[in-house]
Amino acid sequence: MRYVRFETRAGEKKYGVLSDDKIKVIQGSIFEDHSITEEAYPLYTVKLLAPVEPTKILCIGLNYVDHAKEFGKPVPDEPLLFLKPSTSVIGPEEKIIYPPQTQNLHYEVELAIVIGRTAKNIKRAEALEYVFGYTVGNDITARDLQSTDSQWSRAKGFDTFCPLGPWIETEINNQDNLDIKLYLNGEVKQNSNTNNLAFKCADLIEYLSAIMTLLPGDVILTGTPGGIGSMQPGDKVEAYVEKIGTLTNTIALP
Amino acid sequence: MRYVRFETRAGEKKYGVLSDDKIKVIQGSIFEDHSITEEAYPLYTVKLLAPVEPTKILCIGLNYVDHAKEFGKPVPDEPLLFLKPSTSVIGPEEKIIYPPQTQNLHYEVELAIVIGRTAKNIKRAEALEYVFGYTVGNDITARDLQSTDSQWSRAKGFDTFCPLGPWIETEINNQDNLDIKLYLNGEVKQNSNTNNLAFKCADLIEYLSAIMTLLPGDVILTGTPGGIGSMQPGDKVEAYVEKIGTLTNTIALP
Repeated sequence: MRYVRFETRAGEKKYGVLSDDKIKVIQGSIFEDHSITEEAYPLYTVKLLAPVEPTKILCIGLNYVDHAKEFGKPVPDEPLLFLKPSTSVIGPEEKIIYPPQTQNLHYEVELAIVIGRTAKNIKRAEALEYVFGYTVGNDITARDLQSTDSQWSRAKGFDTFCPLGPWIETEINNQDNLDIKLYLNGEVKQNSNTNNLAFKCADLIEYLSAIMTLLPGDVILTGTPGGIGSMQPGDKVEAYVEKIGTLTNTIALP
Repeated sequence: MRYVRFETRAGEKKYGVLSDDKIKVIQGSIFEDHSITEEAYPLYTVKLLAPVEPTKILCIGLNYVDHAKEFGKPVPDEPLLFLKPSTSVIGPEEKIIYPPQTQNLHYEVELAIVIGRTAKNIKRAEALEYVFGYTVGNDITARDLQSTDSQWSRAKGFDTFCPLGPWIETEINNQDNLDIKLYLNGEVKQNSNTNNLAFKCADLIEYLSAIMTLLPGDVILTGTPGGIGSMQPGDKVEAYVEKIGTLTNTIALP
């Protein structure tokens, strides 16, 4: 099923499930008991929002060998964790704002795990039971600030630097074998498959839940493949993961 | 005024204001219109909780000259930002859990700013208008993992690694001149004054709000002075800031 969060023309924010081009409204929290109602909206009449409102966004650096190589680093022995703030989240079609503090704004397509149940000290074998579904993330990065700051929190943490969407797909059972691509103005720039992830989704849930409690709605950005590069104001950036879909955003000046 | 969050013996969680040893319950959000009711609890009958539930915790590294020196680094030209996850927050008297992944668990007393109003692109001259009040933070750090991981998110991000409290003090107007101390088992280990902060509270709000939107309840940990050191299971750690009070926690094995 495809879970969406959306805004109606009347300005109401709701959750729903998408079937063909129709959204049926959900009653209750998507992470608890909920029901699908008969209240429905045609997809073209609503604005899709980021499909989840995470309390935290856990990101993994250098998790594809080819990206680690272009970054001049080995894949680490353990997952390299960093955090993005919840205020960085935007939805499909929203503008990524090019901040004045950077001169080198980069895209990074990523498979995003959406946690469905509270998870602490979960072993790899049970890890996928804690996944609600998957969406697409774009880990926007001020590449110049990433080099000059020892910590990546500023370079990765500006408002609008975490596009998520277009929806959460819950019926994926081959998360370790999905094509992943990024298009800039229609041209393919990143092109890989999640089978190239050094640490797979289940590995990451085991590793991260041994550090901190994962809550329903929390998002894990699993890392980006090779092919990183710059964007300019006016550019259109499309992040694609097989079986999920395409997350489209444009770049704008403040 | 001293704002507290607390749990009654009946297990209800409430906000209140503390006067002498009595808590008067607040109706409404402390960050919006709210009123103080006549419902009251003696302080000794309740459990104090972390006084705020931040959506993000922004931390500043190497912001006291003596700490930067003991860490072998200069004070950076700009504030050094990193993030702690909201799941790391605990309250007064709660246990800090010594995780098996580290062999070197450190305290770090800090003055904590609690944001009161949504803040984006705020200039230094207006910055303090966005402050709700101040509390005490202890930026618990797995010092060994801080060295081995390039990013500090794991070393600083374990559950229980962000004690906050005991309350939010709203009547501080000399935040740049407060004594700050840390006691380990009664012995003073850190002893400084916020006038030694390289970047002051107003500087930090200007810098951070130019990157991301600060929301009511968000916390800024302003940095720790020199004197960092290890703690062991069973230790009692007291973080003190003048005019606010003392935040006490103990160290425990999982």
